[in-house]
Amino acid sequence: MTGRAEEIPDILITDASVLTMTDHPPFIARADIGIRDGLILFIRDKEALPEPGRSGHPDAARQIIPARGQLVMPGLVNTHTHLPMVLLRGLADDLPLMEWLNGFIFPAEGRFMNEKTVYAASLLAMAEMILSGTTTFCDSYFFVDRIAQAALDTGMRGVVCQGFIDFSAPDVADSRKKARLAEQFLSRWQNGHPLIKPALFCHSPYTCSSETLKEIKRVSLDRQVPYLIHLAETKDEVGMIKEKYRKTPVLYLDDLGVLDAGTIAVHCNWLTDVEIELLACRGVKISHCPESNMKLAAGMAPVPKLLRRGITVGLGTDGTASNNNLDLFREMSMAARIHKVIESDPTVMDAGTVLRMGTIDGARLLGLDRQIGTVEVGKAADLILVDLNQPHLTPLYRCPSQLVYAASGSDVATVIIDGKLVLHNRTFVHIDLQNIMETVRDMGNLISRELPA
Amino acid sequence: MTGRAEEIPDILITDASVLTMTDHPPFIARADIGIRDGLILFIRDKEALPEPGRSGHPDAARQIIPARGQLVMPGLVNTHTHLPMVLLRGLADDLPLMEWLNGFIFPAEGRFMNEKTVYAASLLAMAEMILSGTTTFCDSYFFVDRIAQAALDTGMRGVVCQGFIDFSAPDVADSRKKARLAEQFLSRWQNGHPLIKPALFCHSPYTCSSETLKEIKRVSLDRQVPYLIHLAETKDEVGMIKEKYRKTPVLYLDDLGVLDAGTIAVHCNWLTDVEIELLACRGVKISHCPESNMKLAAGMAPVPKLLRRGITVGLGTDGTASNNNLDLFREMSMAARIHKVIESDPTVMDAGTVLRMGTIDGARLLGLDRQIGTVEVGKAADLILVDLNQPHLTPLYRCPSQLVYAASGSDVATVIIDGKLVLHNRTFVHIDLQNIMETVRDMGNLISRELPA
Repeated sequence: MTGRAEEIPDILITDASVLTMTDHPPFIARADIGIRDGLILFIRDKEALPEPGRSGHPDAARQIIPARGQLVMPGLVNTHTHLPMVLLRGLADDLPLMEWLNGFIFPAEGRFMNEKTVYAASLLAMAEMILSGTTTFCDSYFFVDRIAQAALDTGMRGVVCQGFIDFSAPDVADSRKKARLAEQFLSRWQNGHPLIKPALFCHSPYTCSSETLKEIKRVSLDRQVPYLIHLAETKDEVGMIKEKYRKTPVLYLDDLGVLDAGTIAVHCNWLTDVEIELLACRGVKISHCPESNMKLAAGMAPVPKLLRRGITVGLGTDGTASNNNLDLFREMSMAARIHKVIESDPTVMDAGTVLRMGTIDGARLLGLDRQIGTVEVGKAADLILVDLNQPHLTPLYRCPSQLVYAASGSDVATVIIDGKLVLHNRTFVHIDLQNIMETVRDMGNLISRELPA
Repeated sequence: MTGRAEEIPDILITDASVLTMTDHPPFIARADIGIRDGLILFIRDKEALPEPGRSGHPDAARQIIPARGQLVMPGLVNTHTHLPMVLLRGLADDLPLMEWLNGFIFPAEGRFMNEKTVYAASLLAMAEMILSGTTTFCDSYFFVDRIAQAALDTGMRGVVCQGFIDFSAPDVADSRKKARLAEQFLSRWQNGHPLIKPALFCHSPYTCSSETLKEIKRVSLDRQVPYLIHLAETKDEVGMIKEKYRKTPVLYLDDLGVLDAGTIAVHCNWLTDVEIELLACRGVKISHCPESNMKLAAGMAPVPKLLRRGITVGLGTDGTASNNNLDLFREMSMAARIHKVIESDPTVMDAGTVLRMGTIDGARLLGLDRQIGTVEVGKAADLILVDLNQPHLTPLYRCPSQLVYAASGSDVATVIIDGKLVLHNRTFVHIDLQNIMETVRDMGNLISRELPA
């Protein structure tokens, strides 16, 4: 038994297997977990302590969740999303990148993204994430107050990044106002709600001016919040930056002084060895989005090399216009497979490594590793319960293999975020899923009618 | 309306969207589908014919399946499996290939695969396939009568291949008996049951002798059944064959005379351009298994090139020891993504192409395209109903994109094979899933206890 057993838990999970994502112990075959005031109060190993203690007894908890045949693990951490883009999911696929962006995505965003659609689409995206086991996201978009509000309304934990871009973006008309807008956004949300952590996102080295990149970095340093940027996503980007600045995107950003331990670089598909060294020295963290990178034919980050160099790498789905799903179990499966075939080595990116990327490493990347990412007493109770009683998860020799190579998001039965039950046996506790789907479906129908086929 | 409306259907699916996988029409927004005597009796386009006809009326069918909000499409065709290997799923992963094979898979197969375990594991694998929308499989293994029996018991359509290998395989001790064994197996199952099509499988150019390869080919030609073989799966295989025979595996097999229109070559990850030409000329068909190839770091077939050359390519999951799931929706998603990033071209392997590979092209590869693979009057009613009312499938702009990039096997609600309802709203109609899982779980526990950790 670890933790304080004398207090009565709000929620008691009984008879679960536990994958703690810690080293001591990594796995508990049969345990009860007590949750109180949003935190993990105790983890009782029932094999080690066959006699039940006085408290932590089922009768003493406000809510009991019987979990025999289920696996408790930390909720997954999706380190890169553009959630409102679910509204455009499947609108245009299999197209050349520039035709896709300029012919469909940018025009559709300009016309259809507003406070109302962003909120509605974010609710839908969050429902999808919860149903597939993600409890924390890091989103980068516009109309971000509405995204934060959706997180509060669905009960998700989120790093919500105000986006900046130096050509027409839906809600940012005047580039001089950017730093002020960033300050105001951070003021509204820093210490505003424990589930929401505000941050800042510059779209890319090729869509933001040097001034914007530096200004937003300055604000992020002042306010101690993460600074995100798409970096070295495509070969074309590398070519554009080289042509304009006579150096690669990484060196360009480093000369601007924006690469440091507060920087989260997204994608990083085109890196030289010396750039990898530089990113490691600067303490930059990397969000890896393999499914999106593959679908857009963007390239592939050299993740095994990044890990060998000690760089923190988390997983992201990217937006659903380029994925087109938010299932982080599938992203783990992809991350485990793609680097094996690229490196011609089946031992790289083993299941345990990939699970860490999807949980504690993702939390570390977002600066949340002291709060979430493992099942440990005192950490926030962001937990998912995976139903192991499924044909595709039978028989069960090793949990990590099963979770990475055989499971999918739909195996998640129950989700607890910040100690609150959000999803129970695949039914939402307090949001109306049908209503959320119908609202976005209506918006999609409108887009279908207005856009040429 | 197409088809005979005057007959009373056994099953009537009402108000479904239909992805026919034909060109005329590819999609019907709202249709009723009548099924009788195992076949599709009629497809009634309700938008085109708003007035219901006399028959085909709901009252007239023996069983009605209301399908509003669901999509009917052809059942998926998994062209390469080793189904009994679900028993070893997750037993050993992330290992070097030879350590994995010789240290775990071959010894475990030798010790634990027998008539009883093969039957039990096949039932489990088939349950998993049905739950993820596969209605036809092509399996290559040993103890194959038990696999065929499992297909009959679960109601699946299967091409069941007797396996041949020239080192210790569980049920083939004497290599001289191989041709006779093949003949006997074919005699038992040819015209034995409409759902079972027997075929022959030689394990590979490096595990079968030239005599075995030729003898089994001779029998397959005599009896007009498909001849399967793993081919050019790894670079090591190419090296071994080159060292032994002074030519590549493809040229070696061609010199033996075993490459023809009845040959299904599995994997084909290492092909030169001239070998692709040769395979195309010979009419060889190729089963593509990207998830397995990636997990084992085996290599990757040049599928866009094969398709441009007119070669028929189907999709396979391979066995669950190397995948580790049988979800063909995930395989489609993988096939669509991996070649885009390899070719640096987001337009290759578009959703429609990949869906054809998972349905009608897979059927063509198995010689079953006149029976299955499309939703057409007169074809066998092998149909799956996908529940579109899900957050990750909302909104819906284009069905093919949604199915390939966002859907997964767990979205399949209902499965009909050969006109019989097998799965209804994710509940099996006539098999006891819990019992099947428990039987294999017990076998897995035994293996865990007997094998060193």
